[in-house]
Amino acid sequence: MKNINPGDFVELIFPNKSYKGILLESPKDEKGVILLKLDSGYNIGFKKKDISEIRLIKKAEKKEEKIEIKIPQEKPKIAMIITGGTIASKLDTKTGAVSPLTKPEEFFKFYPKIFDKVSLEKIIVPFTKASEDMDFKDWKKIAKITYNLLNNKEIKGVIITHGTDTLHYTASALSFFLQNLNKPVILTYSQRSIDRASSDANLNLQCSALASISDIAEVLLVGHATMNDDFCFAILGTKARKLHTSRRDAFKSVNRKPIAKIWPDKIEILSEHKLRNEKNKVKLDAKFNNKVALIKFYPGQNPDILEFYHKNKYEGLVIEATGLGHVSSLSKNSFLKKIKKLTKDGIIVCVTSQCIYGRVDPYVYSNGRELEKAGAIFLEDMLSETAFVKLGWILGHKEWKKNKQIIKQKMLTNFAGEINERLDEQFHSL
Amino acid sequence: MKNINPGDFVELIFPNKSYKGILLESPKDEKGVILLKLDSGYNIGFKKKDISEIRLIKKAEKKEEKIEIKIPQEKPKIAMIITGGTIASKLDTKTGAVSPLTKPEEFFKFYPKIFDKVSLEKIIVPFTKASEDMDFKDWKKIAKITYNLLNNKEIKGVIITHGTDTLHYTASALSFFLQNLNKPVILTYSQRSIDRASSDANLNLQCSALASISDIAEVLLVGHATMNDDFCFAILGTKARKLHTSRRDAFKSVNRKPIAKIWPDKIEILSEHKLRNEKNKVKLDAKFNNKVALIKFYPGQNPDILEFYHKNKYEGLVIEATGLGHVSSLSKNSFLKKIKKLTKDGIIVCVTSQCIYGRVDPYVYSNGRELEKAGAIFLEDMLSETAFVKLGWILGHKEWKKNKQIIKQKMLTNFAGEINERLDEQFHSL
Repeated sequence: MKNINPGDFVELIFPNKSYKGILLESPKDEKGVILLKLDSGYNIGFKKKDISEIRLIKKAEKKEEKIEIKIPQEKPKIAMIITGGTIASKLDTKTGAVSPLTKPEEFFKFYPKIFDKVSLEKIIVPFTKASEDMDFKDWKKIAKITYNLLNNKEIKGVIITHGTDTLHYTASALSFFLQNLNKPVILTYSQRSIDRASSDANLNLQCSALASISDIAEVLLVGHATMNDDFCFAILGTKARKLHTSRRDAFKSVNRKPIAKIWPDKIEILSEHKLRNEKNKVKLDAKFNNKVALIKFYPGQNPDILEFYHKNKYEGLVIEATGLGHVSSLSKNSFLKKIKKLTKDGIIVCVTSQCIYGRVDPYVYSNGRELEKAGAIFLEDMLSETAFVKLGWILGHKEWKKNKQIIKQKMLTNFAGEINERLDEQFHSL
Repeated sequence: MKNINPGDFVELIFPNKSYKGILLESPKDEKGVILLKLDSGYNIGFKKKDISEIRLIKKAEKKEEKIEIKIPQEKPKIAMIITGGTIASKLDTKTGAVSPLTKPEEFFKFYPKIFDKVSLEKIIVPFTKASEDMDFKDWKKIAKITYNLLNNKEIKGVIITHGTDTLHYTASALSFFLQNLNKPVILTYSQRSIDRASSDANLNLQCSALASISDIAEVLLVGHATMNDDFCFAILGTKARKLHTSRRDAFKSVNRKPIAKIWPDKIEILSEHKLRNEKNKVKLDAKFNNKVALIKFYPGQNPDILEFYHKNKYEGLVIEATGLGHVSSLSKNSFLKKIKKLTKDGIIVCVTSQCIYGRVDPYVYSNGRELEKAGAIFLEDMLSETAFVKLGWILGHKEWKKNKQIIKQKMLTNFAGEINERLDEQFHSL
């Protein structure tokens, strides 16, 4: 380890393999571990004792810290909300830790190209956390800040950066919490940190900038459309789902076409959407009843789990059922029978499919018919994650939740494109 | 309704639309309902009062019931297990109900082409039920019958017909329950009933017949590769997942290539597999501990659900986590903290990803590292459904479950291709 310091580009040699990357400082509580930032942008830990040799490839460059850049001001003004995620963070090459970019000047340094199109008027950082740690309280905070920005006449659109894990849940929440939308609300992310030449951050952010000043007044998730660094898709917030753990094109538009295809310098509209109307005043409707749960059904599952939610005074359940929306029905202790009991006691039970693609349909098989008769609400082609968020939102409204018929009608009303009447043919084979 | 009877091909006229299909007898308990079998093969119910007119298009043909067909006997002999599903059922055009085909003669009548290649030696019908009603006891029954057939020298391979809803769970179960496989075990299905010209049953069954006499000694799911009626994929039992509620190509091979591409008259091998070896004696290892559960994590989820399983003496949990395998970690009442408690008390906690595609990895973010430290077992690129079945199978072995290290080692041992070391690039954009 002589002459090799954190920040240097090195090769770790093992008996049968080797890894190249930037050496990071070892975690304080794991002194026997060497951390390396791989070319893929990921940090990976190795046990020191397994490493045969550490070879220096290139010393860390000492970076100029002075920033003296004038940001052009005549461009359309947008705002950015930073909640975490790699895309809006700078890397400390010594520790591998990331901290958020909080000044327009810093953005200009890392992403000069977005300023070809827009002027970054405001950056707001309500919190920074891994998205798996977010919950409805965070969704409310983001919605409130976005609401204020959208009703600011100076601001043309809002970009929100976010970790990828639960980005699609947050996108759904904002789609319901922000009613009567007037301008674009763009959620974006990156899978690889910005210090990598191969980072997806630059393209995602350039496309987001263009989307944020476009005429699409929707909550959109903008990110890589393919593995190549060529263009992005803008996916409707209620129809996006993370479908890959690590790829740059991790998000897919499910059961409908993406809204648009976006390059750094142009937008191609692919499907219907609401149009920018700056005279609209956005309505903040950030309500959420957290006595809702999402349950994935599997064969042989004991329905006592439903009883657990019953006892704990849950008010709504989304059952991620099999196929067209089925659960067990034959045995004395079937899901169907327990659901009957729950709905009788006033608990709202909704049905989506774990197939992800396609539509639930209670009318094809008798099991489906029985389940509908038992009071379950079949949510068409809605994603389970969107359904969970929507049910919490609907049951967060005191005026609606008094009446089961109103709840059902609201669950089947299309508030934010969460239901697509006619599925686009977009489920391609591998 | 004069002169129109169940079985007739009719058009139902509504004020704004119309539907064509075969009229079925109304359900006994829903006298105000008209049932129609659509061209898609699905039954759909309408309220009589909403229908303006029923137009007769074609009277039902009276079918010849006498079967006098000689089945060629010199072909390779295979056996078939019928558990339900549209593919091995005949439709009663009067009621829309289906009943299984139980004689080779009936198969010959509906599927004459499969007898170009094989001779159907045996048909066994242990039960017929919707697959959402199956559980581990059914998996055991099917495994035992298959085991006996595979160790019968006369039989070249086994075809199992099955409903689509949980077909991939059963495919996983057979992959683990039947060790030291010597011949092909082919699971197949159809999404549309055989009385339809557009049925997928014929192609799926022809390709299954060819697969059953091939040299691939694996548990395979064989079905439409695309929406067209041209060829099938043979997907490894542990890597198949239903990803569409209704399309003919509903099943996808996840995180690895399909084993083969199959046309009615030829097989193209796409990836590595075990070879037929008729000297092998198959070992039946149909064990299952049903004190295992599958839990899909979502943002803000209350970890008390973990406590519920703890109290109910569950021995193993599969957490379908977000992204690379993350759960909430920040609050006092986080999933991470509860998992720590459970693993201390000896409960096995495994982690898969709700992204479906890709691999979990505890080493990229600190949340993952913490979860691994807490004792969770990260199951690489294994599907959640496969992981659930495998955990039940592993914990069904008394000799293994005594020792946590053995359980972990077994969960990470590749018994039936459930782990793919190097993911194939097969996650195509839409």
